[in-house]
Amino acid sequence: MQFPGSHILSIQQFERADVERIFAVADAMAPYAQREKVTRVLDGAILGSMFFEPSTRTRVSFGSAFNLLGGEVRETTGFENSAIAKGESLYDTARVLSGYSDVIAMRHPAEGSVAEFAAASRVPVINGGDGSNEHPSQALLDLYTIRSEIATRGRGLEQLRIAMVGDLRYGRTVHSLCKLLRLFQGVQVVLVSPEALRMPGEIVEDLRATGHEVLESDQLEASIAHVDIVYSTRIQEERFSSQEEADLYRGRFRLNQNIYTHHCEPNTVIMHPLPRDSRENARELDDDLNDNPNLAIFRQTDNGMLVRMALFALILDVVDQVDRHARAVSWYTGGRF
Amino acid sequence: MQFPGSHILSIQQFERADVERIFAVADAMAPYAQREKVTRVLDGAILGSMFFEPSTRTRVSFGSAFNLLGGEVRETTGFENSAIAKGESLYDTARVLSGYSDVIAMRHPAEGSVAEFAAASRVPVINGGDGSNEHPSQALLDLYTIRSEIATRGRGLEQLRIAMVGDLRYGRTVHSLCKLLRLFQGVQVVLVSPEALRMPGEIVEDLRATGHEVLESDQLEASIAHVDIVYSTRIQEERFSSQEEADLYRGRFRLNQNIYTHHCEPNTVIMHPLPRDSRENARELDDDLNDNPNLAIFRQTDNGMLVRMALFALILDVVDQVDRHARAVSWYTGGRF
Amino acid sequence: MQFPGSHILSIQQFERADVERIFAVADAMAPYAQREKVTRVLDGAILGSMFFEPSTRTRVSFGSAFNLLGGEVRETTGFENSAIAKGESLYDTARVLSGYSDVIAMRHPAEGSVAEFAAASRVPVINGGDGSNEHPSQALLDLYTIRSEIATRGRGLEQLRIAMVGDLRYGRTVHSLCKLLRLFQGVQVVLVSPEALRMPGEIVEDLRATGHEVLESDQLEASIAHVDIVYSTRIQEERFSSQEEADLYRGRFRLNQNIYTHHCEPNTVIMHPLPRDSRENARELDDDLNDNPNLAIFRQTDNGMLVRMALFALILDVVDQVDRHARAVSWYTGGRF
Repeated sequence: MQFPGSHILSIQQFERADVERIFAVADAMAPYAQREKVTRVLDGAILGSMFFEPSTRTRVSFGSAFNLLGGEVRETTGFENSAIAKGESLYDTARVLSGYSDVIAMRHPAEGSVAEFAAASRVPVINGGDGSNEHPSQALLDLYTIRSEIATRGRGLEQLRIAMVGDLRYGRTVHSLCKLLRLFQGVQVVLVSPEALRMPGEIVEDLRATGHEVLESDQLEASIAHVDIVYSTRIQEERFSSQEEADLYRGRFRLNQNIYTHHCEPNTVIMHPLPRDSRENARELDDDLNDNPNLAIFRQTDNGMLVRMALFALILDVVDQVDRHARAVSWYTGGRF
Repeated sequence: MQFPGSHILSIQQFERADVERIFAVADAMAPYAQREKVTRVLDGAILGSMFFEPSTRTRVSFGSAFNLLGGEVRETTGFENSAIAKGESLYDTARVLSGYSDVIAMRHPAEGSVAEFAAASRVPVINGGDGSNEHPSQALLDLYTIRSEIATRGRGLEQLRIAMVGDLRYGRTVHSLCKLLRLFQGVQVVLVSPEALRMPGEIVEDLRATGHEVLESDQLEASIAHVDIVYSTRIQEERFSSQEEADLYRGRFRLNQNIYTHHCEPNTVIMHPLPRDSRENARELDDDLNDNPNLAIFRQTDNGMLVRMALFALILDVVDQVDRHARAVSWYTGGRF
Repeated sequence: MQFPGSHILSIQQFERADVERIFAVADAMAPYAQREKVTRVLDGAILGSMFFEPSTRTRVSFGSAFNLLGGEVRETTGFENSAIAKGESLYDTARVLSGYSDVIAMRHPAEGSVAEFAAASRVPVINGGDGSNEHPSQALLDLYTIRSEIATRGRGLEQLRIAMVGDLRYGRTVHSLCKLLRLFQGVQVVLVSPEALRMPGEIVEDLRATGHEVLESDQLEASIAHVDIVYSTRIQEERFSSQEEADLYRGRFRLNQNIYTHHCEPNTVIMHPLPRDSRENARELDDDLNDNPNLAIFRQTDNGMLVRMALFALILDVVDQVDRHARAVSWYTGGRF
């Protein structure tokens, strides 16, 4: 792909070189996100943040990332706009709203809607989630986090060993992550789920067809014994027909400090797309892991800022100008990270 | 009127010289809206965007226009504020909220509410729609679009020929547009509607009393044969007592490419206040017009940015300073317009 | 307390020197809030405005105060975020959201929630109201207003005479104000309420134990005869079990211009935390006071901007830099204050 002006709709649009380019730019964004420096490279630019379905953290993460580059944000949340209710086509909505900003981050409950919007948009559109379909910046921040975490442990994305745990059937993030992992070599994936919530067969087959090793299991302890990453997920209870059905699976695979100590290799990284379910009957990642330095779940969300800054910088073609607009931070930032 | 510090409440407050001044300033805003240049003339100023009734595109348009001039935007949408529910008067609300910004754009469901608010406000207020009463920036952008479109066709607002089609009874925009047209000379207006949805009599009489020609018809094809502009409108179904009643009129006047080709003069301009109703049984402007270069509906919404920028620049008295704060755009804007 | 990096959770955390420091900084903010000057000292900083319970004026006041210092604002209103509904702990929410901004202003319906959030936050948090518990910036702006108003009348916070009128049982603001007044000497407080809505006993006792004089009464006229300040409050009807019960007390103590003229000392200051209830059967402060120059209720809300600017400047340690980033205002501000 050619970044300047591109839409970011699906992880399928990326080749390995694209991913590596995004990650290199994300690395360069860290001093700004961590408040060592300020840049105003996008001073005067406007992000249209169009969240037709609410998602606070994705919305705020996109907005803050744009602010960190110096730009302004105009937001919409929910279908407050009755235009669609009045029979307006997504084509018209896109033509109108794309006149108000330089780039758009959009979430919408319907699969394929963001791509349809993008086709009519006059400015680049980033998919912030279209139903159960795609959420490419989430997949990128997951892979970026894996890369960052294991790099400090002397490992790389080649020959990565990862266990994915929980609701692998409905979890959009693990599907996308599997697709991204295919771009690398010799990955070993252990899929841990209840029988009813197994990873869709075509994703497993695609991984195997591209030379990766996939194991499936319904036993947590044995499955996390020899991996670099444990990627835990929440039971997507909103996808089940009843609360009772979801409750069959909630709390089935719980990782806590005791299990971690007895079963994982030292420094095994723990990830989760968040939110984690901290209610008594769920707790897929116990609170007693909060002091474990290998718990990377909050570094994941921090990395989301870096990846989103990188996407904006690439799409708007200002990567080489970011540092030129840099200056020192003049306010208190002590003890932040 | 004297612009600096003025409220913008009604199109009735404008004389022809005011309208021409607004349009001249709007023209000067185009390079900024089209991203040829950036200006920071309002850097440090705050717009209070008080949308007590949701309207995504009007809200975002005002906000983006203010951002394009360099200012910040603080927004409220809906009656999230329970202060009014707690018995607060509009006077108090206005006194409080007007302390938080330099200028206010306000929408409210009640007729006359914005004027009442403005009377107590300590900063200038722009009416972004008060019920079925007024929405002056919409009327101005419509007239500005007419002027721009026909200028390239060698025509002017004097002796303008325009057909207004659809729900002329409840459509606020066509009422306002008629009032604005009275400021010019020798306009010919063809009003096309079902009998039950005719333009209110006093508006028709006002036009005639100021020397303009008004024809009324319930036949589309003949009515659009000799005009510069076809201004189509949606059936305002939310104003009818039942869906069944609205359905009597929906889809009654449909313009599509075939009718356009066979009945309109070449380069007749097609306008619509949007949203257009693209559902099967409505389609007052068919999607097959989307590739017709005379379809000006999206240029209309783009012009809304110019007109709103002009209003802000005039009210805050920075017209002469806009260019002094200009600089080049440093990010990718390719293929935008 | 040491300000840079501090959370602002409760007025109990302040000593008198802290309050005086905040007020001195608030004084210095006036030229910026009143648009005599612009400062960009926080250009590049981000405020996370997390209003899990809506409150338009508090939210907009915090946001505008941050804008006036040059910073950006990212907002959330309501529980649009379903993460908490999905079982996320406040700890996780805080860890995630605090990565998106430099400082957070937060409102939440649950008592103690903001402190719990702050304990996990990586950036300073200001409590914008946590249920019936605390709303420290409101208490500070009330006291700041008292100080400003009586200073021009040759009086000071020592030996202050104040009447608090109305719903003293449920009104959070009067509770907090009493706690702040304990930091000063020889204050005389007259508490005017229906028997059922008296000030909680421990607050009265605390005032007396720290050497202040407290009188309680259910008669308005006599109670406001010899005070510097009449602080009126609304009946918090949402706290009563029924509308009927609230109606027993609404309209019980009404101050109007006639009563003011006949009973108050000249230049007695009238305050109210707003919203005031202007419905027929309430009117604790009659509209006929609107032209009384001693009605300070809108100066109160204006002062809220100064106090919030001061809190941001102190927490982010930029007090000494504000003036260095100052420049003239270039837009129309005529007749604003």
